[in-house]
Amino acid sequence: MTVRLYQVAVDALDPAALARFWAAVLGHRILLESAGEVVVGADEHAYPGLVFVPVAERRKGKNRLHLDLVPDDRGAEVARLLALSATPADVGQPVDAGWTVLADPEGNEFCVLDPKRSLLG
Amino acid sequence: MTVRLYQVAVDALDPAALARFWAAVLGHRILLESAGEVVVGADEHAYPGLVFVPVAERRKGKNRLHLDLVPDDRGAEVARLLALSATPADVGQPVDAGWTVLADPEGNEFCVLDPKRSLLG
Repeated sequence: MTVRLYQVAVDALDPAALARFWAAVLGHRILLESAGEVVVGADEHAYPGLVFVPVAERRKGKNRLHLDLVPDDRGAEVARLLALSATPADVGQPVDAGWTVLADPEGNEFCVLDPKRSLLG
Repeated sequence: MTVRLYQVAVDALDPAALARFWAAVLGHRILLESAGEVVVGADEHAYPGLVFVPVAERRKGKNRLHLDLVPDDRGAEVARLLALSATPADVGQPVDAGWTVLADPEGNEFCVLDPKRSLLG
């Protein structure tokens, strides 16, 4: 293999704050922090990590890319994420979808899947 | 750990075509294909994978989230990606940035980093 998916970069109004939210979501650490980027990952050798980069512009409408999380227990995980300051989001999903749509503190939508919807063995 | 980053979901006008582009980029396979989603990954047990989901709307401006790739050789990798139908993209990056910005066939920006810019050991 000559190339690997290394990280997902997220434009942020407040990279330091958004990085800490996502580190708490994933149980990850802040691996690097500078004026230009804040890197979150399990450790230096794990990837993809997340990198938060400063921008001045606010989001405009639904994101084209979003993150899907798979929990052990969707209900318990959604409760934990709401307590971390995630908010419910409506992107037109079915009422009884097999996933819950939330938004991070800057409004980026993400999904918490039912474990049974994943391909993971 | 109670939750994991499972996949990155990408809204697509043509999920089947965009999934094949990204499978070729990453050397991954199409793991699942239905009218509602096309899943790309190294195998069923590797994650994050990518999932392409159909939408009717075109992109509006720069994506809030994007993928960063790390290659063994940036110049060779960029040449390979351009041959796969990636196109150069300008998001205001410095002329001599340590990364190359490209766009996939639907215009989603992504970056090819210099190997030395990554934290990977």
